[in-house]
Amino acid sequence: MATSPNPKTAISPRRDEDFPEWYQQAVRAAELAEPSDVRGCMVIRPWGYGIWENMQRQLDALIRATGHRNAYFPLFIPLSYFAKEAEHVEGFAKECAVVTHYRLKTDEEAGLVPDPESKLTEPLIVRPTSETIIGASYAKWVQSYRDLPILINQWCNIVRWEMRTRLFLRTTEFLWQEGHTVHETEAEAREETKRMLGVYETFVRERCAIPVFAGLKSDSEKFPGAVETMALEAMVQDRKAIQAGTSHFLGQNFARASGIQFQSREGKQEFGWTTSWGMTTRMVGTVLMAHGDDDGVVLPPRIAPTHVVILPITAKEETRVAVLEACHKLAARLRDNRYADLPVDVEVDQRELGGGVKNWEWIKKGVPLRVEIGPRDLEKNAVTVSRRDQPVKTKESLATEEFVARAPDILASIQESLYERAKMFRDANTRVINSKKEFYDFFTPKDSAKPEIHGGFALAHWNGSREIEEQIKNDLKVTIRVIPLDDSSEAGQCIFTGEPSARRVIWAKSY
Amino acid sequence: MATSPNPKTAISPRRDEDFPEWYQQAVRAAELAEPSDVRGCMVIRPWGYGIWENMQRQLDALIRATGHRNAYFPLFIPLSYFAKEAEHVEGFAKECAVVTHYRLKTDEEAGLVPDPESKLTEPLIVRPTSETIIGASYAKWVQSYRDLPILINQWCNIVRWEMRTRLFLRTTEFLWQEGHTVHETEAEAREETKRMLGVYETFVRERCAIPVFAGLKSDSEKFPGAVETMALEAMVQDRKAIQAGTSHFLGQNFARASGIQFQSREGKQEFGWTTSWGMTTRMVGTVLMAHGDDDGVVLPPRIAPTHVVILPITAKEETRVAVLEACHKLAARLRDNRYADLPVDVEVDQRELGGGVKNWEWIKKGVPLRVEIGPRDLEKNAVTVSRRDQPVKTKESLATEEFVARAPDILASIQESLYERAKMFRDANTRVINSKKEFYDFFTPKDSAKPEIHGGFALAHWNGSREIEEQIKNDLKVTIRVIPLDDSSEAGQCIFTGEPSARRVIWAKSY
Repeated sequence: MATSPNPKTAISPRRDEDFPEWYQQAVRAAELAEPSDVRGCMVIRPWGYGIWENMQRQLDALIRATGHRNAYFPLFIPLSYFAKEAEHVEGFAKECAVVTHYRLKTDEEAGLVPDPESKLTEPLIVRPTSETIIGASYAKWVQSYRDLPILINQWCNIVRWEMRTRLFLRTTEFLWQEGHTVHETEAEAREETKRMLGVYETFVRERCAIPVFAGLKSDSEKFPGAVETMALEAMVQDRKAIQAGTSHFLGQNFARASGIQFQSREGKQEFGWTTSWGMTTRMVGTVLMAHGDDDGVVLPPRIAPTHVVILPITAKEETRVAVLEACHKLAARLRDNRYADLPVDVEVDQRELGGGVKNWEWIKKGVPLRVEIGPRDLEKNAVTVSRRDQPVKTKESLATEEFVARAPDILASIQESLYERAKMFRDANTRVINSKKEFYDFFTPKDSAKPEIHGGFALAHWNGSREIEEQIKNDLKVTIRVIPLDDSSEAGQCIFTGEPSARRVIWAKSY
Repeated sequence: MATSPNPKTAISPRRDEDFPEWYQQAVRAAELAEPSDVRGCMVIRPWGYGIWENMQRQLDALIRATGHRNAYFPLFIPLSYFAKEAEHVEGFAKECAVVTHYRLKTDEEAGLVPDPESKLTEPLIVRPTSETIIGASYAKWVQSYRDLPILINQWCNIVRWEMRTRLFLRTTEFLWQEGHTVHETEAEAREETKRMLGVYETFVRERCAIPVFAGLKSDSEKFPGAVETMALEAMVQDRKAIQAGTSHFLGQNFARASGIQFQSREGKQEFGWTTSWGMTTRMVGTVLMAHGDDDGVVLPPRIAPTHVVILPITAKEETRVAVLEACHKLAARLRDNRYADLPVDVEVDQRELGGGVKNWEWIKKGVPLRVEIGPRDLEKNAVTVSRRDQPVKTKESLATEEFVARAPDILASIQESLYERAKMFRDANTRVINSKKEFYDFFTPKDSAKPEIHGGFALAHWNGSREIEEQIKNDLKVTIRVIPLDDSSEAGQCIFTGEPSARRVIWAKSY
């Protein structure tokens, strides 16, 4: 069996040595994505895109099951639309791509240039989010309370100009879904905001195998223009928080800006109550940071592009044909089996490459199950199975019959073990903190010369003031991730000021 | 039963009165799409997008089954990339959106404006097609013949600035898939080009129920930068041709421009052989123009967002509950049934609207089967069924049991009848033409003062010269749609010059 390129681990550096660099290397080694020459834009390669497609298919089904339908709105937003909601423009104007011309021409000296004669009277913004452009349609569609609710979702690309980018986590262009709804009453819109946060929670927990805390954002962290922003926060393995889905109650702010008005049951003209909610390709990076190990990506089976890879051991020419035949026969039988309501997804990797090279490629890609079949396995009518959630060298020989029958259960067991492991990690690094000193200690590396993984989630009382948030952010780069919605916390005293606090909030460093 | 808003037809004007206007009205009446305030960009509404999603799902499966995988590349193309292939830039430079700034700022006088300090050194083009940006990645990925073939597809949005737009048919932004492949040899690339045209043909014929002619484009009609363009041409009900899928053999042109080079089996550096192929949201408009009637959209069941709509007749309050119950029970039973490998898609329309209004809405939307259930049906344990491919007033009473059992067959029969009808129409309007006079007659309206539907596909001999093409285009707005690939034609003489011609080509007016 081949060994890792690095004597100890397939990815170098290890997570504990340099987490950000480990992440970049793991993304590249798995061929999930790579930077492009277009500033801040990434290329999502087939394996990374396959993960996104699985996320998309499953989240889409959940969104449909809650009564929403997909539609598609323009990529471009006229500058004047964008300017309609004051806080919104303030939040996004700094980071958008602006289209100013609609034609190129060949200049004798400068070569190909934007044709000055094609300058647009009104520049167009490449959508950084679509509240305003979708609002313009809704204003036309909504006349009466009978037209409500409007429950629409859109899958699309988004552009926000970013100066410092990281693959999947922060890129100038990314992919997402954005739901946009209009309701007759405030109560319904608030309920929708919460319902969709719940959909995300189900998706992230059951499909991505990641536990999350759900709650409200503090005013300083909410979406520009929203009345209330709800979010899910996951912990990844450097103990930082990452937002995994967000749902906004927009009140009547955007309805007012876009003119979404309807005749109420009482015959009065009223503004609609709107929500919006989104989840992005950032989730692919989140999965890697939550489950990856020092050998690379580890994929929850529910979102893996391939569940099982079969690796034929064909070193001996005389058994080659028989081995390949057995591999394809096994693949066919596995595909007749179902996991999570779909056929088991199997690939036979019969490339002319060394067995060790191929095995390590699949380890780094994070495929849930690797199955080797060689001449000796044939003799025993057995297969050699490795689970990606177990140490790389752990193998089990199983009778072929047994493996075929048990494969869906093994996949389910991997899915569960990844969730349990992530939850244990998060819980072990979530601390109830009752003093300012303890808080500062928790978030301060022990040896400032050497970066290390430290901190986690702190559950601490807070007086609700923005000034305190500012100070903690400046001192420690720590912010309030969510104000939990459940009643898991007692009242107490702000650990920074001693003032009364209704409940503990969750603090962390974050992506 | 309610009558149409127009005494005769639900859509006014009729197709024979004013086909372009009928089309626009039918799109709007079915709520497929509508124009947005952003010049040339459309809003695809849920019913229209649902058709596109069904197309996408099925075409995607065919593309995967031929060994391709999806990926995602940047929306933006640096100007310098775009300029690399001379014919390509010539073909697209006139119609692209140019991003020149990446930030807005508030100017005291002018309000929100592009921040002059954020001007990009190199403008970015919003992709009008992705050969050049994808080529830049492939140049990195391809080192050796062992890395080939590369078989990748992308689903995305595209922007080509259009001055005269029509919903689905020609819009500044549209959605599509674009396949981009690299091969070791010319023969493989040519085979791929043909294979993907075949995939499109299967898709258009079997799923969209539209017959097509497949063939080569003449030089004047091919993709800018391609060596050879293959296309499918469908006929719609004004007897014009519309392109339904296109596949390009790019030779080594783009490989040279992007530097896609590999070490061959003989150890030499060679340029890759590339192809690209695409199908767009234009197909939604094509389906409407191929199958629609004077009452609106008619959808082939394979791509309909809903197969069956159940309309409860609840005029009498005392039977209301029982009727609704029967409707939902029927819906559940139908959903347990499968059509084309998926559960039958059923909607119960229990909105508080008049039965006639609802019925007409669904007629205009083109749902394949409408089922009414009222108190009298309940008594007989029957349902009243209307097929969209039959005249609007045609209804059949079927025992509920029988309908449940037969629904998939009825859907299959509708699918088939739409194809047969479209094929008969096309064949009836495809003419073998042997003289210039006959050709000019065929394409000249009888009464020039009154627009009328005339012409069709003309199969005529041609000497292969571009000048003749130009002249016919100027005289009649007729062009060569395809040079068929099959051997259905004998050699002969060009009908315009008398010169020798190897085979008949297909001429038509086109979209």
